[in-house]
Amino acid sequence: MAALDSLRERLAELADLGSLARLAGWDQRTMMPPAGGPARAYQMASISRLAHDRGTAEEIGAWLDAIDGADLSEVDRDLVRVARRDWERERRVPADLAAERAQASAEGEAAWQSARAASDFAAFVPALRRNVELARAYADCLDDGEHPYDALLADYDWGLTAARIEEIFGPLAEALPPLVTEAATRPDPPALEIPIKTQQAAVRSTLARIGVDDERWRIDVSPHPFSTSMGRDDLRVTTRYERPGAESLLAALHEFGHALYESQIAPELGRTNLGHGTSMSIHESQSKLWENHVARNRAFAPVLAAEVTAGGYPVKPDALHAVMTHVRPSLIRVEADQVTYPLHIVLRFELELALVEGTLDIADLPTAWSDGMRRLLGVEVPNDAVGVLQDVHWGVGSFGYFPSYALGCLIAAQLWEQLESELGSQDEALAAAEVGAIRDWLGEHVHRYGRRLDTEPLVQQATSRGIDAAPFLRYAGQAHIR
Amino acid sequence: MAALDSLRERLAELADLGSLARLAGWDQRTMMPPAGGPARAYQMASISRLAHDRGTAEEIGAWLDAIDGADLSEVDRDLVRVARRDWERERRVPADLAAERAQASAEGEAAWQSARAASDFAAFVPALRRNVELARAYADCLDDGEHPYDALLADYDWGLTAARIEEIFGPLAEALPPLVTEAATRPDPPALEIPIKTQQAAVRSTLARIGVDDERWRIDVSPHPFSTSMGRDDLRVTTRYERPGAESLLAALHEFGHALYESQIAPELGRTNLGHGTSMSIHESQSKLWENHVARNRAFAPVLAAEVTAGGYPVKPDALHAVMTHVRPSLIRVEADQVTYPLHIVLRFELELALVEGTLDIADLPTAWSDGMRRLLGVEVPNDAVGVLQDVHWGVGSFGYFPSYALGCLIAAQLWEQLESELGSQDEALAAAEVGAIRDWLGEHVHRYGRRLDTEPLVQQATSRGIDAAPFLRYAGQAHIR
Repeated sequence: MAALDSLRERLAELADLGSLARLAGWDQRTMMPPAGGPARAYQMASISRLAHDRGTAEEIGAWLDAIDGADLSEVDRDLVRVARRDWERERRVPADLAAERAQASAEGEAAWQSARAASDFAAFVPALRRNVELARAYADCLDDGEHPYDALLADYDWGLTAARIEEIFGPLAEALPPLVTEAATRPDPPALEIPIKTQQAAVRSTLARIGVDDERWRIDVSPHPFSTSMGRDDLRVTTRYERPGAESLLAALHEFGHALYESQIAPELGRTNLGHGTSMSIHESQSKLWENHVARNRAFAPVLAAEVTAGGYPVKPDALHAVMTHVRPSLIRVEADQVTYPLHIVLRFELELALVEGTLDIADLPTAWSDGMRRLLGVEVPNDAVGVLQDVHWGVGSFGYFPSYALGCLIAAQLWEQLESELGSQDEALAAAEVGAIRDWLGEHVHRYGRRLDTEPLVQQATSRGIDAAPFLRYAGQAHIR
Repeated sequence: MAALDSLRERLAELADLGSLARLAGWDQRTMMPPAGGPARAYQMASISRLAHDRGTAEEIGAWLDAIDGADLSEVDRDLVRVARRDWERERRVPADLAAERAQASAEGEAAWQSARAASDFAAFVPALRRNVELARAYADCLDDGEHPYDALLADYDWGLTAARIEEIFGPLAEALPPLVTEAATRPDPPALEIPIKTQQAAVRSTLARIGVDDERWRIDVSPHPFSTSMGRDDLRVTTRYERPGAESLLAALHEFGHALYESQIAPELGRTNLGHGTSMSIHESQSKLWENHVARNRAFAPVLAAEVTAGGYPVKPDALHAVMTHVRPSLIRVEADQVTYPLHIVLRFELELALVEGTLDIADLPTAWSDGMRRLLGVEVPNDAVGVLQDVHWGVGSFGYFPSYALGCLIAAQLWEQLESELGSQDEALAAAEVGAIRDWLGEHVHRYGRRLDTEPLVQQATSRGIDAAPFLRYAGQAHIR
């Protein structure tokens, strides 16, 4: 069937361009000499424009029409369905608007940086206003404009809506704050002073024990840990070694979860439009599963403690586990523990939804932020730099991205409960660093589908119900007393 | 002028794609996990096909026609001239032939590898025959087919011809063999056993002294040393540390010469079709200049010896220099010294010219090889593995590439004589590792032009005469008695 062949060939080309763009991004963040930045920006812009042109071309529509109604395999049905969705969505956005958003994003990031440095929210207001207006204009292109936030969400988590997220997040805002209040009264565990060299050795040896080999993986260092892949056999994670605690280990396990997802997508989906993780939420659920339910698992603490000890810093499992799971309300999202983290997101979701819907005036944002932090986390915000200005997202025009961070925590807990209900408790296996069964279960129930299932249908398929906060609340209830 | 703007925009896109392809190649040879290979091959093929499509598109012809006759700046005149040349040349080759050549190249490489492993020339004959036939077919597309070798040469050195190369190489085959015969009677200098760690330290510190900084450069390791760049401010060289001698230092200086060329091309040529080294010969002349005339310069030996000594291996300048300049006829091109090296190329040029012109039967190639090695270098070839099968080039269908290796040696010597005739002897500066004047002279007379001047016009412009073997012969005459 010629049209399907042509479509598959184009999708393979787009997949290859995507891989090359990710390689350029990986290189930029790990290897590139600093002076290479300006040229790299041009290169990234060129490949992205070319991918857009090739991905929105007229002929794709003709191929899709020619395929319409044909008798297809299940995979090809999904491939065609998602191809039409992507093609139609990307064509709805006029080139002028896309260019203006890109420019507003770059300028907004610069405005955000200087406003944050000066802790001066007023200086950020014009850029933020422009980004909100452009986000609404963008949403208008994508649907009837009645639920602009839903249209934005679809860039990150197809099929979810603001109403559904409000429903999912509802229990968090009720059940978590009391746990946090209680935790705030508990003393800090003794801090660890793990030397960088020890951390590096422990990260390498721990990752090696859970499946990272030199044939398919690289482990590097970057200021912000991330993971990427240029195919299921070319997997790259980074971590950072800037503090004396266990942050590098947690980050490494987190990024491992992301990369493992990409590595276990069905080979037949390679070089198609289905060959990647399906959404931001599911991706984050995979990183959070390894961070919260493996790395922070009491049963796994002897493994980590042994690797840290072997690296030259003797530590008891209990002491390491205490540091890695300590709950303490704080101002900064990226430093938050596993229990308070979703509350930072609940606040951001409420506020960005109100901004996009126009029910919150931008000038009132700092006050709303402070009120929310007091209500949800019981902390006072001393200034905007550590308050409403702490995250880059709104500066670059990303609205609808934040929810995936908390959804990831929730879905991770839900998957972990399901996994243990099917396989039995993993405590013994974790104590021996045997994670093959965990990897296989995730491969079978989550990873292999790639983009064939969207966020909530995938959760439904793996756990026989939709996204549910209850497992996370059970996890949080245990975690804070551990 | 809209057509010129459109042309420049397309050339910028092609330059960006070229940079990304080079990045993918660099990564493949230095960083990529081994299992990433198959996916990387697809990615490279996709970007190369896309660059071909974008670079041979109809609209480019329309822009060129619209520009024709317009009053242009000097740079734009060159840009348009080279754009037309590239566009017309690339469009002359049918897609089927290009694909067949690519496939024959891949299959030929595999056939060559197993034939070399078995030292069995007969096993290589079918692949070689196919490559020769396809090279002729390719040459037929490019010109009238009367001088097929000239058409092939143009891929590497536009404007050179077989007749011109015969003229240039003539004196080498006469004057070098007696030098080699004499050198063969001289004893070997005492070997050095420089530890790898010392070599690594000496490579870094020596490169730092001649202009390599962390802002714009990377130094990595690869099985075959190479250099590449993703813009004039993103320069990457590699070397290898496999032997206890000075090979890693020579390779590092060689690759530095290549990268320095790219780094000193006029900024206004960036992201155009003129923003790269103009030809294989000129590129090789830049690497050979730093390898033969700086690294092997007696005046520079104290600098290298000091860095090796600082790295933990005490060595006298004379001892290091003796090892780095020792002349000894040998079987293998890539291990040849600075004097015998061009003779290896003279032989290959004679043979590949005869193959392409059909005056040498493929079955007679091993005998012709052995005869040539005896005549030019006075060595006996014990088997095909270290004889006619030692290089990959003919296996992958590259004919016309070899001459640039020797032309590079010749042009390097010619430029070096010119440089010292203008700036005076560099002995004192080299002894102090002061190479700023050398870098600047090369920038001014060679590098800044990019592709604005082709091989021989560039040499003419820098030295007021065409390519000339005499300076190299003078260099070789000194070198062998040093």
